[in-house]
Amino acid sequence: MKEKIIQFIDGIEEKIISYRRDFHKYPEIGWTEYRTASKIARRLIELGFEVKLGRDVLKDEDRMGLPPKEELENHYQRALKQGADEEFIVPLRGGFTGVIGILDLGDGPGVGMRFDIDALKVLEDDSDDHLPHRLKFSSVNQNVMHACGHDCHAAIGLGVAETLSSLKDEMDGIGRIKLIFQPAEEGVRGAKAMVGAGILEDIDYIIGGHIGLKSSKTLVCGTNGFMATTKFDINFKGKGAHAGGAPNEGNNSMLAACTAVLNLNAIPRHMAGSSRINVGVLSSGTDRNVIPEESFMKVETRGENTEINDYVREYALRIIENSAKMHNVDYRVKYMGEAQCGECSQELVERISRIGNSLGYFDNIIDISDDVGGSEDFTFMINKVKEKGGQSVYFTIGTDTKGGHHNSKFDVNEKDITNAVKLFVMITIDILKEIKQLG
Amino acid sequence: MKEKIIQFIDGIEEKIISYRRDFHKYPEIGWTEYRTASKIARRLIELGFEVKLGRDVLKDEDRMGLPPKEELENHYQRALKQGADEEFIVPLRGGFTGVIGILDLGDGPGVGMRFDIDALKVLEDDSDDHLPHRLKFSSVNQNVMHACGHDCHAAIGLGVAETLSSLKDEMDGIGRIKLIFQPAEEGVRGAKAMVGAGILEDIDYIIGGHIGLKSSKTLVCGTNGFMATTKFDINFKGKGAHAGGAPNEGNNSMLAACTAVLNLNAIPRHMAGSSRINVGVLSSGTDRNVIPEESFMKVETRGENTEINDYVREYALRIIENSAKMHNVDYRVKYMGEAQCGECSQELVERISRIGNSLGYFDNIIDISDDVGGSEDFTFMINKVKEKGGQSVYFTIGTDTKGGHHNSKFDVNEKDITNAVKLFVMITIDILKEIKQLG
Amino acid sequence: MKEKIIQFIDGIEEKIISYRRDFHKYPEIGWTEYRTASKIARRLIELGFEVKLGRDVLKDEDRMGLPPKEELENHYQRALKQGADEEFIVPLRGGFTGVIGILDLGDGPGVGMRFDIDALKVLEDDSDDHLPHRLKFSSVNQNVMHACGHDCHAAIGLGVAETLSSLKDEMDGIGRIKLIFQPAEEGVRGAKAMVGAGILEDIDYIIGGHIGLKSSKTLVCGTNGFMATTKFDINFKGKGAHAGGAPNEGNNSMLAACTAVLNLNAIPRHMAGSSRINVGVLSSGTDRNVIPEESFMKVETRGENTEINDYVREYALRIIENSAKMHNVDYRVKYMGEAQCGECSQELVERISRIGNSLGYFDNIIDISDDVGGSEDFTFMINKVKEKGGQSVYFTIGTDTKGGHHNSKFDVNEKDITNAVKLFVMITIDILKEIKQLG
Amino acid sequence: MKEKIIQFIDGIEEKIISYRRDFHKYPEIGWTEYRTASKIARRLIELGFEVKLGRDVLKDEDRMGLPPKEELENHYQRALKQGADEEFIVPLRGGFTGVIGILDLGDGPGVGMRFDIDALKVLEDDSDDHLPHRLKFSSVNQNVMHACGHDCHAAIGLGVAETLSSLKDEMDGIGRIKLIFQPAEEGVRGAKAMVGAGILEDIDYIIGGHIGLKSSKTLVCGTNGFMATTKFDINFKGKGAHAGGAPNEGNNSMLAACTAVLNLNAIPRHMAGSSRINVGVLSSGTDRNVIPEESFMKVETRGENTEINDYVREYALRIIENSAKMHNVDYRVKYMGEAQCGECSQELVERISRIGNSLGYFDNIIDISDDVGGSEDFTFMINKVKEKGGQSVYFTIGTDTKGGHHNSKFDVNEKDITNAVKLFVMITIDILKEIKQLG
Repeated sequence: MKEKIIQFIDGIEEKIISYRRDFHKYPEIGWTEYRTASKIARRLIELGFEVKLGRDVLKDEDRMGLPPKEELENHYQRALKQGADEEFIVPLRGGFTGVIGILDLGDGPGVGMRFDIDALKVLEDDSDDHLPHRLKFSSVNQNVMHACGHDCHAAIGLGVAETLSSLKDEMDGIGRIKLIFQPAEEGVRGAKAMVGAGILEDIDYIIGGHIGLKSSKTLVCGTNGFMATTKFDINFKGKGAHAGGAPNEGNNSMLAACTAVLNLNAIPRHMAGSSRINVGVLSSGTDRNVIPEESFMKVETRGENTEINDYVREYALRIIENSAKMHNVDYRVKYMGEAQCGECSQELVERISRIGNSLGYFDNIIDISDDVGGSEDFTFMINKVKEKGGQSVYFTIGTDTKGGHHNSKFDVNEKDITNAVKLFVMITIDILKEIKQLG
Repeated sequence: MKEKIIQFIDGIEEKIISYRRDFHKYPEIGWTEYRTASKIARRLIELGFEVKLGRDVLKDEDRMGLPPKEELENHYQRALKQGADEEFIVPLRGGFTGVIGILDLGDGPGVGMRFDIDALKVLEDDSDDHLPHRLKFSSVNQNVMHACGHDCHAAIGLGVAETLSSLKDEMDGIGRIKLIFQPAEEGVRGAKAMVGAGILEDIDYIIGGHIGLKSSKTLVCGTNGFMATTKFDINFKGKGAHAGGAPNEGNNSMLAACTAVLNLNAIPRHMAGSSRINVGVLSSGTDRNVIPEESFMKVETRGENTEINDYVREYALRIIENSAKMHNVDYRVKYMGEAQCGECSQELVERISRIGNSLGYFDNIIDISDDVGGSEDFTFMINKVKEKGGQSVYFTIGTDTKGGHHNSKFDVNEKDITNAVKLFVMITIDILKEIKQLG
Repeated sequence: MKEKIIQFIDGIEEKIISYRRDFHKYPEIGWTEYRTASKIARRLIELGFEVKLGRDVLKDEDRMGLPPKEELENHYQRALKQGADEEFIVPLRGGFTGVIGILDLGDGPGVGMRFDIDALKVLEDDSDDHLPHRLKFSSVNQNVMHACGHDCHAAIGLGVAETLSSLKDEMDGIGRIKLIFQPAEEGVRGAKAMVGAGILEDIDYIIGGHIGLKSSKTLVCGTNGFMATTKFDINFKGKGAHAGGAPNEGNNSMLAACTAVLNLNAIPRHMAGSSRINVGVLSSGTDRNVIPEESFMKVETRGENTEINDYVREYALRIIENSAKMHNVDYRVKYMGEAQCGECSQELVERISRIGNSLGYFDNIIDISDDVGGSEDFTFMINKVKEKGGQSVYFTIGTDTKGGHHNSKFDVNEKDITNAVKLFVMITIDILKEIKQLG
Repeated sequence: MKEKIIQFIDGIEEKIISYRRDFHKYPEIGWTEYRTASKIARRLIELGFEVKLGRDVLKDEDRMGLPPKEELENHYQRALKQGADEEFIVPLRGGFTGVIGILDLGDGPGVGMRFDIDALKVLEDDSDDHLPHRLKFSSVNQNVMHACGHDCHAAIGLGVAETLSSLKDEMDGIGRIKLIFQPAEEGVRGAKAMVGAGILEDIDYIIGGHIGLKSSKTLVCGTNGFMATTKFDINFKGKGAHAGGAPNEGNNSMLAACTAVLNLNAIPRHMAGSSRINVGVLSSGTDRNVIPEESFMKVETRGENTEINDYVREYALRIIENSAKMHNVDYRVKYMGEAQCGECSQELVERISRIGNSLGYFDNIIDISDDVGGSEDFTFMINKVKEKGGQSVYFTIGTDTKGGHHNSKFDVNEKDITNAVKLFVMITIDILKEIKQLG
């Protein structure tokens, strides 16, 4: 069967790449993936998958970091003009841009795969050495770009769907498969809402992955270093006044914000491991001669484990509250993103290592990567499945990138995309077949 | 002669108001007063004044707070479309938007009058109770508005020109008169450059004034409370880095800026009098998860006298320098505006009081106002003339305003405009005639 | 009568100076003036004054900045050893070290004079050019010294008592005279408690004065520049922890204190006039490698008027509260001193000027001094009497000082002491006689 | 031979304990161990060791954190009164309180053992449940106490000396042994100066150890978690001024210090591992109403490796420098202590494990402990020997302690002391014999 799979996937390489280029050309930032998600839904239906989407797969109140309503609606209209599927876009309206394809092959365990589909606010490079530009599939959406490879992830997901669809008959009675197309991974905003909608209740194995980060022909079978993180915005509201004529009549929100910034950075280290705090954006005041009435900050905390992140976040909120009160300033906290730390299941890591080896493509197979500092909201899925006694894994398939991640020249080696499809499909079948035999 | 002047001015009231409404409809912010200044120049020529303008009346390197070149050029083109005088606009190009009209009536002292002509970045109100809107002379330039009465000042200047032109024959041999139309008073940016160009070298008496601040029929003969002030912008440049993955590789410009803000506000009070410091604007960083590479601040210092302002400014610069160095961050200071403190000559104050009384219009005549807090770059002219042994004064002619100064609903009682014209003309003639007689 | 007064006072000069030298030799800091006060009480009784002291002239809960009980008691014992009056010291125990001498001369207005009697924590100079050392009346109390002239003030008070006692018969039926010997003026701690005890209820004129500040033969008839002030101590209590092993387990009181210090100094200036804030002392932490558990600050606020001081103090307390809470630290505020601003009654200023002139001693008589910055708790008395419709004044009799005030070499020209006595006596009689005549 | 060693040591247990109790009774803080060191030198000589001490074993300029000269001299006199050896104390004068005993047994490798001998500033408990008090060997030196077991370390060193002396004949020709008695380990002040004096030039194996930290019968064969650290004091010197009358004339050292404290705590985390920063002590200012002229801080930095500590220290010094300059304040840095990170040689760890096992005493033998947070200046010796190609180890022999380390009730189970002696002796002989055989 392995040979057949490989042959099939090699045969649809061009189609998979065309998916990728289409998504690349019409990139959509988190919670506005109307075109991307609706077209994925359409194709899943065509391939015989049961499709769930919109509010059925996203818990409204767990969605974080949504754009304003008006902006969401503008994107909805834009997507319609750019060829979104007119039927499937309807339930996505209002920023419910998640899609799931289900293949129920009878009794047996549930295997989920997660593909994130959102783009970044980056202005794509338009020089001739940038391949997407040369081949005319670079972004048509100003200041939005697939600069982190989620176009590939979406295409990989459809490649997996094509392949599994073609193998359906041979897999009868071995379990349930879910292809999870997740919005708003950037800023770690979307996963929590999908988990909150209960989509993992019948899942025993969850697999996620990322393209890039290492060079082509490198496979990292599991990643453990993700930090728990919370992202939040702060709005301070004081009172303006003429800085020359009536300085004491203002309530200076900039003093509140700057006191907060210094103290936030001064939150003591935690004895139990790494922590992080960053105020990435601060904007305050309107005119030189006016006491600044409003200030705005974007903050994030991280911890090597959840306890540490909780410690930093709680301390941070106390600092912010009291920095505001000190200067008679009001404040509002808005949660914009959240991820947990999470650890891959060793058994799945080994399974991926074995299958990766069997493909004969990878030069360098690394068991576990432990780089500290980054965050992934796939950790919500890792932990949810493990809590229920299941297994989770997040692997990385290297690709020679141009520019770095989040860079305007970012591009992948498209040859690596089909190998990712092969891995997802073969891991899934490997799990289901083995379980069936054991059963 | 007094009766004749009054009669003449009453006779041209409608014309003066039409000047004001024209300027009001086409407001131009500091250094972009191409239309306003070129039309003033044209009218002065028509009235028989010698005209100097552009680089002849503005010292290039003393101009502060200029918009970027491209913006200057866009305004130049806009002004042309809005009816600027095609001949006189040429020497104004590049932000040299000052104009002087000279009436040389033979040997005798020189009397200067200063009229500031720039508008503010305010979006004008468009409700029906806003008279300029109702009468259809509200601003056609988006987000620009004459919300501080400089449209009136420019119109008063032309009214004075009309009147003096008509009286020319009767004033033969009594001295020199200069009408100084100054750009960029808002942000105290323009006066220094006019003084720097030497325009006051032959001036023995300088008179400035403002409409509003008090109610109609109130005359304040002199204002002494102006604070010396310096306005400057700070650009901090550090180094970005991923806040999770490599926090130590960044040089955090936000830490520099916030340290500066707290310490700037903490500059010790001065024993000798009032001081002020304000950071009115702070913007820092780009993304939540990136160490902020760049930060920007708008700062102003003030002092009850020049020594105090110097003390605050020097301390402020030391704080900024060392806040930057502390975090390995570069910084750049750009001076954006400057005014001095200044005191009116008592003799001129009394002269205005006497003339004000003689007009029979004012209910309330106040000698000297001493309100602390505000700043005026006319102080450069006050001090320049006094240094040379001359006399200076800055009076306020009240008017019932709608909205406050700098407010989107700001409007004056147009009845007060001609009274201002009368005052300027009569003070000037009073000085020149008396001197002549004494001589 | 004037001649007689002058003659009398000149005749007791030596006695007055011996009072001064005795007080100088046994200086006592605020609330521990057991020896000074008890000896004053004894002398007042001998001179025929009615004496009130201790709890009768000091409201317990209004006394501010008291030393700890044990220290008070040690001073009590010390005073006994140093010759305190064994009878009159008893009611002073526990830091009730105020004394009042009353001369009731029948119906008529009440005139009060206030003399402050406390010393400073200064180690007196012991070089040969320091006259008190050379003449062997320098301080025997280690680290305590009369370095602000209150030894003279006490002696002046006794000189006034001697004189009035001798004139008693001639002043029959003209009113009530109170000599108020106040403890703890340094740190502005004592006056409020005397006023609180009701000692001014029957006083229509209150007169205070200071020796020094100007040179000999200068008289300043009134001082108006006193700032309202509040003095308070802050104790922060956090939690210690090993800074290397468990940094997150501490609650860092030093972070709270330093955040407070920066923000306290950054309290915005007040539009209505001068303000001051100072943290004069900060001590925090015990060991280099321990998160600082406790911190302590001495703070003072001032304002050109009471409203401004209230504004600064309220803002300061808000900053302190929230700096503490921000870092999970407790805090306690203890009020240590308080003074008001106050303005002299013009009529009394003129009266002093006239009498000063008549003495023929002064070269330089200044009406009103307006130096901003200092504080005096005599302002409580100024305001109390004026509230009731009375008049108040605080004059300065210059003397050529060695060292400055509060300096270890401080000394006065003793020749100026009797002139102060003359002024107090003659002003008092001037007031009472005039009123009587008018009546 | 093993049996003989054990028997010998068991036989001198009482003597070893009496050493410990003697040292405990006369505790001496770092650089004042005149009595302790001189008595050790005397005993080493008696036992046939060559002795080096004073300036021969301590590089003057590398000694950190010395008490003031006067204090050193007072301790010298105290030590003489408390029975210091009158001959050997002489070369120790001035704080050169290190001693080395050398046993040259012919050609072969050099083995060094390090014993630290200083006490802490702790007031020893005097309740009856504190054994040293009950048995009358508690500290006679007020506020000084052996609360970290260095009395035991010194006694262990003498026990080792006694034992090796008795075995001398049997070890002929096997190498050199050095017993290093180090002053001032507390505050990591002494090791650098011993290494700087060249005492490790002929040493191939260096062994250090600590009693306590784990419970009795636990042996930790190596410790790797030590953080590199730098300890330094900062003196800020500004200018005082009256806070009410002349606030602008001061240079406020407290503003400098508080700005430093906040920014020091805000030094960004390092991506490569744990870091620490602490300002443990801050004291600033003298009087409430005076701008604080002087401020003083005790600072320490730590890093999981030397690069990280260097990063934190360099950043800290930049913050301090610029906090001072910002407020026109001078500052001075004084280095008070330093330690490196260091890693034990695996071969020695295994050797200790083997020998520990063979003693049949330990219940729990742990290979390596990795607790982060603490620091040890023995790391200078670890790294010096390893740099030359040698091996280093630092082991911990547990003991049931009363109170914790640095606590006023600290005490050990004396039964564990002889086991430490056995380990030191047997490891040394094991190394030397094996090398000899291999040779």
